[in-house]
Amino acid sequence: MKPDLSSLSLSIAFEQLQHREYSALELTEACLLQIVRLDPVINAFITLAPELAVRGAMQADVLFVKAPSNLKELALLGLPLGIKDLFDVSGIATTAGSKFFADSIPAEDSAVVLKLRLSGAVILGKTNTHEIALGVTGVNPHYGAVKNPWETSHITGGSSSGSAAAVASGMCLAAIGTDTGGSIRIPAALCGVVGLKPTYGRVSMRGVIPLSRNLDHVGPITRTVRDAALMLSEMAGFDPHDPASVNIPKDDYLGHLEEGVKGWRVALAAGEYVETSDIEVLAAVNEVAQVFRDLGAQVEREDISWLPELALANNQMTLADGATFHRERLREHADWFGADVYQRLQKGAALSSSDYVLARRKQAEGRRWFETFFEKFDILILPTTPVPAPTIDDTGAIEAARQLTRFTSSFNLTGLPALSVPCGFTEMGLPIGVQIVSKHWAEVKVLQAGHSFEQATEWHKRFPKV
Amino acid sequence: MKPDLSSLSLSIAFEQLQHREYSALELTEACLLQIVRLDPVINAFITLAPELAVRGAMQADVLFVKAPSNLKELALLGLPLGIKDLFDVSGIATTAGSKFFADSIPAEDSAVVLKLRLSGAVILGKTNTHEIALGVTGVNPHYGAVKNPWETSHITGGSSSGSAAAVASGMCLAAIGTDTGGSIRIPAALCGVVGLKPTYGRVSMRGVIPLSRNLDHVGPITRTVRDAALMLSEMAGFDPHDPASVNIPKDDYLGHLEEGVKGWRVALAAGEYVETSDIEVLAAVNEVAQVFRDLGAQVEREDISWLPELALANNQMTLADGATFHRERLREHADWFGADVYQRLQKGAALSSSDYVLARRKQAEGRRWFETFFEKFDILILPTTPVPAPTIDDTGAIEAARQLTRFTSSFNLTGLPALSVPCGFTEMGLPIGVQIVSKHWAEVKVLQAGHSFEQATEWHKRFPKV
Repeated sequence: MKPDLSSLSLSIAFEQLQHREYSALELTEACLLQIVRLDPVINAFITLAPELAVRGAMQADVLFVKAPSNLKELALLGLPLGIKDLFDVSGIATTAGSKFFADSIPAEDSAVVLKLRLSGAVILGKTNTHEIALGVTGVNPHYGAVKNPWETSHITGGSSSGSAAAVASGMCLAAIGTDTGGSIRIPAALCGVVGLKPTYGRVSMRGVIPLSRNLDHVGPITRTVRDAALMLSEMAGFDPHDPASVNIPKDDYLGHLEEGVKGWRVALAAGEYVETSDIEVLAAVNEVAQVFRDLGAQVEREDISWLPELALANNQMTLADGATFHRERLREHADWFGADVYQRLQKGAALSSSDYVLARRKQAEGRRWFETFFEKFDILILPTTPVPAPTIDDTGAIEAARQLTRFTSSFNLTGLPALSVPCGFTEMGLPIGVQIVSKHWAEVKVLQAGHSFEQATEWHKRFPKV
Repeated sequence: MKPDLSSLSLSIAFEQLQHREYSALELTEACLLQIVRLDPVINAFITLAPELAVRGAMQADVLFVKAPSNLKELALLGLPLGIKDLFDVSGIATTAGSKFFADSIPAEDSAVVLKLRLSGAVILGKTNTHEIALGVTGVNPHYGAVKNPWETSHITGGSSSGSAAAVASGMCLAAIGTDTGGSIRIPAALCGVVGLKPTYGRVSMRGVIPLSRNLDHVGPITRTVRDAALMLSEMAGFDPHDPASVNIPKDDYLGHLEEGVKGWRVALAAGEYVETSDIEVLAAVNEVAQVFRDLGAQVEREDISWLPELALANNQMTLADGATFHRERLREHADWFGADVYQRLQKGAALSSSDYVLARRKQAEGRRWFETFFEKFDILILPTTPVPAPTIDDTGAIEAARQLTRFTSSFNLTGLPALSVPCGFTEMGLPIGVQIVSKHWAEVKVLQAGHSFEQATEWHKRFPKV
C-alpha cells in the first residue's frame, strides 16, 4: 500500500508505519514528490531538505523494525513535518522570509525543532512566511507569494503561510508556525486545516527569530485536532533558557479528547464587532454553535464588542517590539525590507513609550477581563477571520491585515490558548475556520471541544483538488 | 499603665490592649500627642484624622470589652496606623504629595485600607510622601521636607517618607507605603525600622494613585519583623479588580517566624557594584552575614555586578509609566510639579517605545536570572542603601536618588519579595539597613530570616531621642 496523502493524519500515518503498511522512507518520498509536483505553483517552501529528510526517514525505519515495542518516546517517528522558516534547524538557513537572513545558517536547532527530532519527526524543509512574520498575507517580496491550495489566485493568510499551505495540500502531514497576532490560526483557517496557538509561555521560543517576544507563540498546524494535541504534547514544556517560558507542567492533551462537551457553557461571540463579518462566515459559525448545542453544551450569545481595543494594543505592541528588534537593519538597509513591512516598522519606531505603556495597560485589563469571563464559560467560539481568503491581487495588504487579525490578535495580547478548526466552505469553495478559546493553560479544553466538533462534522475530510 | 511608645510593637500593644493594661483610646491618644509634640519638626503627616482615629479606637474598646473571646478576625484591633498619602481613605483627601490632588477626596477606601479597617486598625492620618512618589528624598515642595527622627538635618529617604518617620518616632505603631524603586525599603533603612516590599501582585493596588502599575508594590513599615508579618497577613490577598493582583493563596506569615535559618544557603552580595558602598554600611552588612553563619546558615559571596542593568531598566520603565499616567497634568500644568519631579517626567515622556521594549526585555532576563539564582540560594542579603541618610541640604536630589535606589530597584523590576531590617548605626548615629531577598512568593522566607536576625541582635530596640 502506498501512503494516500489526501487522507493522512499524523495519528493514522503512525499506525500505518507501525503496521509497516509502508515505510517511513516511502512516506517521506511521497511528501517530497507532492512538493515537487505542487510547490512550483503553491510556493510553500523556501528551503527543501531532502537529504536530511531521507536520512531521518531511514533512521526511523530502522527503529520501527529493530525496536517496535519501544516507541513510547518516539511519538512522531517517521512523520514528515514542515518547519516555518523562522525556526532554527541546524545547518539550514533561517531566512525569516527576509533578505537580511538569507544566508544566516544556525549551528543549533531551535528548542522546539530539537524536541520534534527527539520524538522521531522527519524534517522536510523550511516553509515560506510573510517577511519577518510581520504581516498576514503571505505575499513575500523575496521568496514569492504563497498560493492557497483551494484556489491559487487567493492568499493563504499568514504569516505561517507555507506551513498551512503545505499541510493543506499534503506536502507534509503537519507543520509548525508562530503566531503574534494570528499567524498560525489565520492561515490554518484560510487553508482549511487546524491551527493551535497555545497559552503564552507554554512552548519554548528559543532559537526562533522573534517579532515580539511579548506576543510570539509557537504552535502546530495539522490536519486534525487529534494531531494538534499530539504535536503539542511533543512541543510543550518549560525551557529555563527562554525568558517567556513558564514552569507549569504540561497536561495530557491526548487523553481527554473523547470526553465531549456535555454540560459545557459555551459563549458564542456576538455584537456588531462580530456581526459585520462575511455572511457565509457568520452562517458557518452559527452552525458550529448548533453543533455544540446538539453535543449537549449550553450556548449563550455574548457581546465582545470591546475586543478592538485589545486588537489595537496588540498591533501597537507588535510594531514597537518588532521595530526594536530590527532597529539596526532598519537603520542600515531600510531598502531591503518590502514596502508593507517597512511601513509597519516605521510606524513602530515612531511610537512613544507612552503608546507602549497604554498598550500594556490594555493588556493587563484584557487578561483580567477574560479571567472573569472564563469563570462563566468553558470556551468562547468566534470566527477565526471575518472573511475568507482574499485574492492575491487585492492590493490592500494593510487593510487585509487589519481585517484578518480582527478576531485573533486579542488572544495574543491576553496569551489565551486558541484553536482554529475548519467549519465550512464558501460557495466558491474557500475554507472557513472557527476559533475556540479558553482560559490560560486550558489547551485540554480547546482541544477537547475542537475534537468533539470535528468528530460531529466532515469538514476535516475534504482535500483540495490540487 | 500608660503605653510606652518607645518600645511598642503591634504585637505587644495588641496583647496589652487585650489585657486591658490601657485602652485603645489611650493608645490612640498617646500617638496623637506624640504627633502634636513631634510633627511640627518631623513633618511626617500631610493630613491628620483625629476624629476618625478616636472613633475607631472607641469602637475597638467596645469590642475588646464585649467580645474578648472573638478577636480572631480582628488581628489589628485598636492599633493606630499611618497611611501613605497615596492610598484612598474615604472622606480624606489623597494628595499624593502633589498640588494636583490637594482637594481630591475619594468616596471609597483603597482595597488595602479597607482590609486594615476590617481587621480593626485605627487610622491616624495620611503620611507625607515624595511628590507623586517619584523620588526618594522626601523633600516635598508642597507639603514640606520630612525630617529624619535620628538626625533632623538629614532626609528620611522616600518616597514613603512620612510612614517611616512616623513609625520610627512612635507617632504610630506601623504604617503602609508603596515601593516602585525602593520607596518602602529605603526610608525604612534610613529611619531604622522594618520595611517589606512583598512579591509583585501579592497586595492589591486598587485605590492607590499609581506611579508605575508595572512596578508599584504595596507593603508595611513596622518596628519589628513580626509586625511586618502580621501586617502582610492582613494586607495580602487576591483582588480581581486589580489587574496586577495574582490569584495565589497567601501563606502563614506568622507561623514560620521561629523556624530559624539552620542549613540555609545565604548569598552575600559581592563585587565592585556592592563594595563601593559606604564603609560603615559594608561593615554592618558583613556583620549580618556573620550572624547568619552563627545561626547555622552557609554564607557564600556572590558577584551581582550586572544588577545596574536591571536598575536602569526599572528607572526607565518607572519614568515612562509615570509620564504616561501624568501626561495630561504635564501638558496642562507642568509648573505645578516640583523641579525634580518635572525633570524626571519630561525624561520619561521623551523615551521611545524602543527604550521601553528594551527595558521590558531586561525585566524578563532579570526574572529568569533570579529564578536560577534562587534555586541555589534561599536568600540574598545586601545593603538596602549604599549610604546612610544624606543631609537635607544636599542639593543633588537626583544623584541621591540614583545612589539610594541602587540596591533596591532591581527587585521592583523582577517583582521579588524584599525586606529591609535595621542592622546597625553609623558613628554619627544614623541607622543602617540590610535587605533580605528571596524568590517569588517566598515572603515567608524573608520574614523568617529577618526575624531570626532580629532576635539575634538588638538593633530594633533602639529609639531615636526625639
